[in-house]
Amino acid sequence: MQVATDMSALYKQDFEYMARAIHLAEKGLYTTSPNPRVGCVIVKDQQVVGEGYHIRAGEAHAEVNALKQAGEQAQGATAYVTLEPCSHFGRTPPCAQALIKAGILKVVVGMTDPNPQVSGRGIEMLRDAGIQVIEPCLEQDCKNLNPGFIKRMTENMPYVRLKLASSLDGRTAMDSGESKWITSADARRDVQSYRARSCAILSGSGTVLADNPSLNVRESDLNFDYLHTPIRQPVKCIIDNQLKITPDLNLFEHNAQVYLLSNKKREQELPINCQAIQLSKQSAKVDLHQVMAELANRQINEIWVEAGAKLAGALIKENLVDELIIYQAPILMGENTFGLVNIPELTELKQAVRWQYQSQTRVGQDLKLVLKAI
Amino acid sequence: MQVATDMSALYKQDFEYMARAIHLAEKGLYTTSPNPRVGCVIVKDQQVVGEGYHIRAGEAHAEVNALKQAGEQAQGATAYVTLEPCSHFGRTPPCAQALIKAGILKVVVGMTDPNPQVSGRGIEMLRDAGIQVIEPCLEQDCKNLNPGFIKRMTENMPYVRLKLASSLDGRTAMDSGESKWITSADARRDVQSYRARSCAILSGSGTVLADNPSLNVRESDLNFDYLHTPIRQPVKCIIDNQLKITPDLNLFEHNAQVYLLSNKKREQELPINCQAIQLSKQSAKVDLHQVMAELANRQINEIWVEAGAKLAGALIKENLVDELIIYQAPILMGENTFGLVNIPELTELKQAVRWQYQSQTRVGQDLKLVLKAI
Repeated sequence: MQVATDMSALYKQDFEYMARAIHLAEKGLYTTSPNPRVGCVIVKDQQVVGEGYHIRAGEAHAEVNALKQAGEQAQGATAYVTLEPCSHFGRTPPCAQALIKAGILKVVVGMTDPNPQVSGRGIEMLRDAGIQVIEPCLEQDCKNLNPGFIKRMTENMPYVRLKLASSLDGRTAMDSGESKWITSADARRDVQSYRARSCAILSGSGTVLADNPSLNVRESDLNFDYLHTPIRQPVKCIIDNQLKITPDLNLFEHNAQVYLLSNKKREQELPINCQAIQLSKQSAKVDLHQVMAELANRQINEIWVEAGAKLAGALIKENLVDELIIYQAPILMGENTFGLVNIPELTELKQAVRWQYQSQTRVGQDLKLVLKAI
Repeated sequence: MQVATDMSALYKQDFEYMARAIHLAEKGLYTTSPNPRVGCVIVKDQQVVGEGYHIRAGEAHAEVNALKQAGEQAQGATAYVTLEPCSHFGRTPPCAQALIKAGILKVVVGMTDPNPQVSGRGIEMLRDAGIQVIEPCLEQDCKNLNPGFIKRMTENMPYVRLKLASSLDGRTAMDSGESKWITSADARRDVQSYRARSCAILSGSGTVLADNPSLNVRESDLNFDYLHTPIRQPVKCIIDNQLKITPDLNLFEHNAQVYLLSNKKREQELPINCQAIQLSKQSAKVDLHQVMAELANRQINEIWVEAGAKLAGALIKENLVDELIIYQAPILMGENTFGLVNIPELTELKQAVRWQYQSQTRVGQDLKLVLKAI
């Protein structure tokens, strides 16, 4: 039996249950990758009988966790899932099968699977079993859970966020190089949550050699009430075309994975947590598109870039930045200072790289601007 | 009979009536200067029986307008006034007397008169007549109505807003000088309302000669539902130390008053709407403190500065700016462009001029930041 979708409509409570499922999915923000964040709510007789979300790869999917909580009550119930249930045997059996087996009668799906090779198959499997499927529901909110997963599945590229910190007049550092404290401790804490949600942090060897950062996530700086420990540390990706990075740097502490990317072959012995990636193009400069493709191939969904004006400018020039996050300190620094990005000289104003404001929020004394590429 | 203030308390409805009086006062935003914006609500038996606000200098004060509407019902009523009623005979008789004569029993005052020479006299006059006076009430909101009037009364200086427009990276113009369209039409419309509320627009001869602006308020760009026409055009104040301004400039159109400020004596014949102000200090550079003091002496409350990086930077350096208004376009322009302000070179980051964010709002495609001096 197949129920046509046009016979079905969404009511206010459907949106509320889906919103709850989205909220559950968010609890996997720091841990699910390379898998997507997914949440599931099971409702019977207008009562929530099961809730679940995916915590980390290799562990149970959201639907399975919710079904487990629902137990016998799943029989004849409705399931709300933020992402189309999977139809394949991976590290876990297909969730569509689990829903069928549990006796679910209706499934509301937030968005279809972004992977074009499997998209729609889970829904088909459910419908073939006589389950009513309604989709999409709060689709944009469901998409917002997984910008990186979606971009990797659809374009084979990661979703790139570029972090910038500046004064009101767009200055980042003194002539002396002094720059560490332009923005407040609150802004720096906010950076920690972006690092934590990302699969990788990207920087250049220049910044790493100058500042010797650890590029680590500090758990104590994350104020999340659903922290799954241990924190998954993002991969530290350093573009190091001149092979200048040495194993004594702070970068290699804490056992997080490090990728060193270069066109050149690296002969030097590397720490056990470090992998050298030799890029195939043997041009003088690193091809940033290739860097991103290499990282997508390694299942990197979201990248957080903390780099100097040169790498930042190059990424912008190559249209590789999806989102700008600017922490703007309420100070004026004047002109004997360094600028925010090194981009090619403009000859006309209309050549300026244009973005779209998404949000503007105060973070301590600073302002945080989020802009998307257009 | 005198009622001690400590016997009196403010209740929820008192704040609501005062908020209404503040809202009324705002209707004079574009017209009251050099007088303050003042609103008044008269309440009897929990009914508003009269409302009024000051429209323009020489016309009736807020209290008189509200009393007129209340008529006989003012007898035994309570008056809510955003500013202490005046006690002196100016162009109109003292409002304190009018309230007494009308039989008002109680007056709730938003804030006392900021003029130290008369502050408290109106309240004293009311109390001497046996009227219960409670003050302050929503004082900060009442103060926000008249930052310029208050600063002029207390410090003999105007309140200065500096307008800046830039890209995300703090750039204002191309090397070619191209700058007119960095921000959107919405931002430029917003500028019109700042011009309209200000007593004066300040600029430098460099900007005037380069762009030949009219520095006028265009009524059609003000979307205020309580526009009192004709719009009061702010005085156009141009710092022109080298006597370069000529009568053919757009500045002199529209009959608005123009002040040309210089250390030098101006021999040239000037248009009828133009006054040359020779500053007393005969130094090479114009003393910006003296400029501001001269303008305060001419009853200028609020000044809106639209100037280039040099004058903007000089005003900041002299601590003469009370508020920054930055229109930030969502574009990146890079380094072969002009910066936002020319301020003295910093040697350490801690010397950077620091501000405090007041608000961040989207204006069309742009972001508008308001910051106050700290």
